[in-house]
Amino acid sequence: MSLDNIRIVLVEPLYGGNVGSVCRAMSNMDISDLALVSPRNLDMDEARKMAVHAGDILENRTEYGTLAEAVVDCGIVVGATARHGLYRQHAKAPRELVGKVLDASEQGKVAMVFGREDNGLTNEELTICTQIIQIPSSEHYSSLNLAQAVLICCYEVFVATGSYEPPQEKSEEAPSQHRERMFEIWRETLLQIGFMEEDKADHMMLGLRRILSRGSLSVDDINIMMGIARQTQWAAKDVNRES
Amino acid sequence: MSLDNIRIVLVEPLYGGNVGSVCRAMSNMDISDLALVSPRNLDMDEARKMAVHAGDILENRTEYGTLAEAVVDCGIVVGATARHGLYRQHAKAPRELVGKVLDASEQGKVAMVFGREDNGLTNEELTICTQIIQIPSSEHYSSLNLAQAVLICCYEVFVATGSYEPPQEKSEEAPSQHRERMFEIWRETLLQIGFMEEDKADHMMLGLRRILSRGSLSVDDINIMMGIARQTQWAAKDVNRES
Repeated sequence: MSLDNIRIVLVEPLYGGNVGSVCRAMSNMDISDLALVSPRNLDMDEARKMAVHAGDILENRTEYGTLAEAVVDCGIVVGATARHGLYRQHAKAPRELVGKVLDASEQGKVAMVFGREDNGLTNEELTICTQIIQIPSSEHYSSLNLAQAVLICCYEVFVATGSYEPPQEKSEEAPSQHRERMFEIWRETLLQIGFMEEDKADHMMLGLRRILSRGSLSVDDINIMMGIARQTQWAAKDVNRES
Repeated sequence: MSLDNIRIVLVEPLYGGNVGSVCRAMSNMDISDLALVSPRNLDMDEARKMAVHAGDILENRTEYGTLAEAVVDCGIVVGATARHGLYRQHAKAPRELVGKVLDASEQGKVAMVFGREDNGLTNEELTICTQIIQIPSSEHYSSLNLAQAVLICCYEVFVATGSYEPPQEKSEEAPSQHRERMFEIWRETLLQIGFMEEDKADHMMLGLRRILSRGSLSVDDINIMMGIARQTQWAAKDVNRES
């Protein structure tokens, strides 16, 4: 699923560093359409510095005089608002809204709109939004930095596409037969080296099973554990011969 | 649920601005224990500026010579790694790990460890970590800014506590009887003003029902819609009298 139809709109941003950080956050989440509404004398050197490898998003940005112009071709228009806004009672968390945003982005452009660093969005601007989003945050300090707010929204969209493939373990969970063979060898070994006596062996092996069953055990893991046990048997025999 | 047991550990951070942004992100998500491992000549003015209202977290930070010292009292130690690391195959997404992190934080301290801006964590440092986390991100630009990476992890923990109360609509979904009364009044009104004829009325009312059923309709919403219809009836009668 492509995120080409998602547009990030910043209304009257004040700090170039924030705009650059927004570009990097967007790029990290595969979103590239940036629109600025009446930016205020941005420090573009700072913007380029903070964008790092996302300078293309900064260069390809579009600029508009008003929010209405920036979203004129958008279906859903999602506005981000702080915790204590007038529109709070209608706001939803990003995770609640993200399905709707993705559905709409298959039909056409969707805007996610973020207000001024110092003053957020005006009521008139919020009126243009079809949905209001509020990022879960502390009661004691609810106001996120602009780029941080953009990141959370882009991250939720990116995760919801399911395009991110979680890392895979190289080998799968080992089959029971393989695991049981390992425990047999460890039993022999622990008896041989005198760690336990025959009458306590079952109890002790339950302990070892508990420890090794807390996570997962791949074939590789089991081979390592069997290798240790076999080597221990060999070394212990050697010691016995010498004594 | 308190997040007092969650410690954010930054290993050899380079930029004061990043450390300040980390403080703000932590505070936004109700996390306050910050540990630095051998910080590199940080610009503390920049740090204080970016921390904004989270200066207390910056002032109360602890500093250590090595990662091992910074996490000596921690149960689970979660290390954040970039997409293409040696340990990638064992990494999990933050959302997968957050339950384990919260469970462990009820027993004692838990660390979330973030590497250098330029070089991440060393293999030796990753060895100290009991879990490896990897933030979902673009294949094309997977490296997040330090404060952005910290924010995502803190946000996932904060959301998982369920302590954030989503905004509530003031009035609940209206009961069917109330909704049906509104549609009756609209039917009368639309007939009265000549918007539709009796033989097309059922079909047209289905359209109006469809439009008004797409979202939810609270008692307040229905009162507004009934008010409009009644006022229309009144105004239309008035016009009829004048003509």
